[in-house]
Amino acid sequence: MSNRIITISREYGSGGRLVGQMVAEKLGIPFYDKKLIALVAQKSGFDITFIEETGEYSTTSSRLFNMVMPNLAIQSNYSPETMPMADKLQIIQGNVIRELAEKGPCVIVGRSADYILRHRTDCLNIFIYSDKDHKVERAIQHFGIDPEHVEKELAHKDKLRAKHYKHYTGQTFGMADNYHVSLDSGLLGIDNCRDVIVDIANRL
Amino acid sequence: MSNRIITISREYGSGGRLVGQMVAEKLGIPFYDKKLIALVAQKSGFDITFIEETGEYSTTSSRLFNMVMPNLAIQSNYSPETMPMADKLQIIQGNVIRELAEKGPCVIVGRSADYILRHRTDCLNIFIYSDKDHKVERAIQHFGIDPEHVEKELAHKDKLRAKHYKHYTGQTFGMADNYHVSLDSGLLGIDNCRDVIVDIANRL
Repeated sequence: MSNRIITISREYGSGGRLVGQMVAEKLGIPFYDKKLIALVAQKSGFDITFIEETGEYSTTSSRLFNMVMPNLAIQSNYSPETMPMADKLQIIQGNVIRELAEKGPCVIVGRSADYILRHRTDCLNIFIYSDKDHKVERAIQHFGIDPEHVEKELAHKDKLRAKHYKHYTGQTFGMADNYHVSLDSGLLGIDNCRDVIVDIANRL
Repeated sequence: MSNRIITISREYGSGGRLVGQMVAEKLGIPFYDKKLIALVAQKSGFDITFIEETGEYSTTSSRLFNMVMPNLAIQSNYSPETMPMADKLQIIQGNVIRELAEKGPCVIVGRSADYILRHRTDCLNIFIYSDKDHKVERAIQHFGIDPEHVEKELAHKDKLRAKHYKHYTGQTFGMADNYHVSLDSGLLGIDNCRDVIVDIANRL
């Protein structure tokens, strides 16, 4: 397996997180999701909830940051006092992701890891998405979201995530060519997504 | 295999056409590319070259057509005298694709077949794309395009194809959720793309 870092980007409610966890189990490599957030909390001192929300859903209004981020982000100890918290978090989060990738094969879910690790040649970047009906079903069953508000909640989360991704990467969330493989978990199902990804990882 | 109609959309130079042909061979089902164009020529009386170019790369300026097309397109004998040739071609092409899909399992390359067959539940829609370097190499080696102009030619073809797709489908070319599976043929290679698609088709 020459593409040993697997990043999983996903639509909210697509089951992408679970797919990532199952891929990591099958390949016997570390899975970074909550663990990644805990590491970012440790390094930054930020609250877990703040990291969960801000690290994927918020944007700063600073255009300047957006322009200079690629350079700042590779300096692991950059942390000026004047920088908005959301931007500081992005930098620390980026550094943690780069350090994890250095350590060895792993699966990383979300956090724009595909973009953060774009200069590496050993990543396999996956995008998991689904039709609305399957996402609604999953959000109600697995996240316990109120059926009455679920569609609005799904649309809201994906809108924020897309805005966040655009802001920090300059790319459009959901464009196939941001990734190496995109799979519709609604048609394929979660188990098939896992098997297809493991198969592709083993082929490379 | 419950998803028995496989549509292949592709970036120019990605090898998607070849992938489609190899998938059809492996599954032992008909492959429609040149054959589809010949059928459209037979039904429409249009020249093969006109169909090849106009059927995927041109747009009409008629906004009205764009709005009414979904309704027109399901009437197989609609052909008003006043309609621009490109639009007439789209309708005839759409009808031929729908008829082929009715006949049985097959692989159809390009021609917005994913969109034309969107109301069927037995399609597996694939998108094949690649990084620029692999597309340049393929365009020079397989299509004999002059290395001096190859990058411009690739960009031009993809731009026209995206414009055409947007015009006739209202969707953005290359967005993962237009398809069920998207594969980067640059990273995976043509043979792996074939094997992954055949594997997925057999799982469904």
